[in-house]
Amino acid sequence: MSDLFTRTVFFVSDGTGITAETLGHSLLAQFPNTRFHQVRMPFVDDVDKARDCARQIVDSERNTGLRPIVFSSLVNPEAIAALREARDSALFLDLFERFIEPLEIELGQHQSHEIGRFHGVAESNDYKKRIEAINFAMTHDDGVSTSEDLVTADVILVGVSRSGKTPTSLYLAMQFGVKAANYPLIPEDFERNKLPGELHSFRGKLFGLTIAPERLSQIRQERRPNSHYASLENCQYEIEAAQKLMRRENIRWLDSTAKSIEEISATIMQNVRTEADF
Amino acid sequence: MSDLFTRTVFFVSDGTGITAETLGHSLLAQFPNTRFHQVRMPFVDDVDKARDCARQIVDSERNTGLRPIVFSSLVNPEAIAALREARDSALFLDLFERFIEPLEIELGQHQSHEIGRFHGVAESNDYKKRIEAINFAMTHDDGVSTSEDLVTADVILVGVSRSGKTPTSLYLAMQFGVKAANYPLIPEDFERNKLPGELHSFRGKLFGLTIAPERLSQIRQERRPNSHYASLENCQYEIEAAQKLMRRENIRWLDSTAKSIEEISATIMQNVRTEADF
Repeated sequence: MSDLFTRTVFFVSDGTGITAETLGHSLLAQFPNTRFHQVRMPFVDDVDKARDCARQIVDSERNTGLRPIVFSSLVNPEAIAALREARDSALFLDLFERFIEPLEIELGQHQSHEIGRFHGVAESNDYKKRIEAINFAMTHDDGVSTSEDLVTADVILVGVSRSGKTPTSLYLAMQFGVKAANYPLIPEDFERNKLPGELHSFRGKLFGLTIAPERLSQIRQERRPNSHYASLENCQYEIEAAQKLMRRENIRWLDSTAKSIEEISATIMQNVRTEADF
Repeated sequence: MSDLFTRTVFFVSDGTGITAETLGHSLLAQFPNTRFHQVRMPFVDDVDKARDCARQIVDSERNTGLRPIVFSSLVNPEAIAALREARDSALFLDLFERFIEPLEIELGQHQSHEIGRFHGVAESNDYKKRIEAINFAMTHDDGVSTSEDLVTADVILVGVSRSGKTPTSLYLAMQFGVKAANYPLIPEDFERNKLPGELHSFRGKLFGLTIAPERLSQIRQERRPNSHYASLENCQYEIEAAQKLMRRENIRWLDSTAKSIEEISATIMQNVRTEADF
């Protein structure tokens, strides 16, 4: 039975390979009983490199006795032809081949055949916005913001320490170009049962993260073992107080416990904006 | 001519929609003469939500007079059927449909039909590694590392201030789960023409970033206008000295000037590792 063996997967791209890898991972996740060994082959932007990939694919079949799976996003027709010299040794899944033709028909245009346009556009406004947003997230982490800074934020995340605010801010910046500041809710806020003063004028931008106390305690233990900060009792107190505060202040929030930063970010984006032009 | 108008693109997913969006952007970048308006529809995980999407797609065609393009990564067959009620109003490109069948045949298994397995696995080791790497990048930014910290780094980026080290470290962490510390090269290093002392034992992990002086000056001007720091003269001096130092110390480096953080990171990954299991 082939599913008892590790299957080799090649991601071949003339750019970074990130598109091929993202789609490949999503597809292969539908086959949880198979283990995969991935080989990244980015920047395959000429015929020689494509031919070299073809050789490695043929070798892989020979060495493992199993046909590798090849996700390819090459756009240069000669490079594609060179890669296809290995066609008898692998299952080829070409990301562009399947979709470009219907798009050409629908849009009444031919594809440009330009390599890696999406990932290559370091000069584009979209890209500049992402880098600015990353810098913003870095400099407005952990409550380090003045009111003037917060005016330019798209989102302000609030929640207790270690509820997932920092990685979420960075992901929002990197993936969506969204400027996210974040603010910890701390015992002083709970005692007053009020938001930090700076946040009062920005209610529309606030988004809360909460987390199960058990999980929070576990995360904090890794950081400061056996501290009051990490104790389950304190985590229960902080979470309860934070939720009470967010409810009182009418802040939208979600539970990050079993969610990835991708899921948290996609949920926040639904509240920020769902449309964009490109 | 349809390409004079903005085309609406729907990204419909039962998970975050990031896979559909990534592939969609790569494909549509092949049609640079068309402007696209994107609508994200994540978390479409039941028939009702899929039916609601179908309605929005039909409305979009009616309102714009142009068939929208729909990238869908739904896996639930009933939800797919409900979405397809809009089939006459749009071009449907289904990410899974085209590729799952050949994979089922190749692997001798049926797909699991589990929703968003890749992005949903907040509990997986792979995911934990990414979050750890993000925390590592945050706490080891800008030279804030001891030798003990650097032992656990996968990569240490070096380069002058604003050469792209910080966003690259974060991207390496987020996308690849790679722990990247970064170290600025500063005038004191150039005067001594030596690496910062902490780095000597970690030569194998060092990767340099350089940048065109004009571009560096431009970036620094935005940060500190009219400063010596941002002057073209100083940028030329620093870049020249940094390159001299990296050459002397035999550090691999690349020019980040016209590269995105995706491209820089994919290049660094070729030097770190190209293979992984999942």
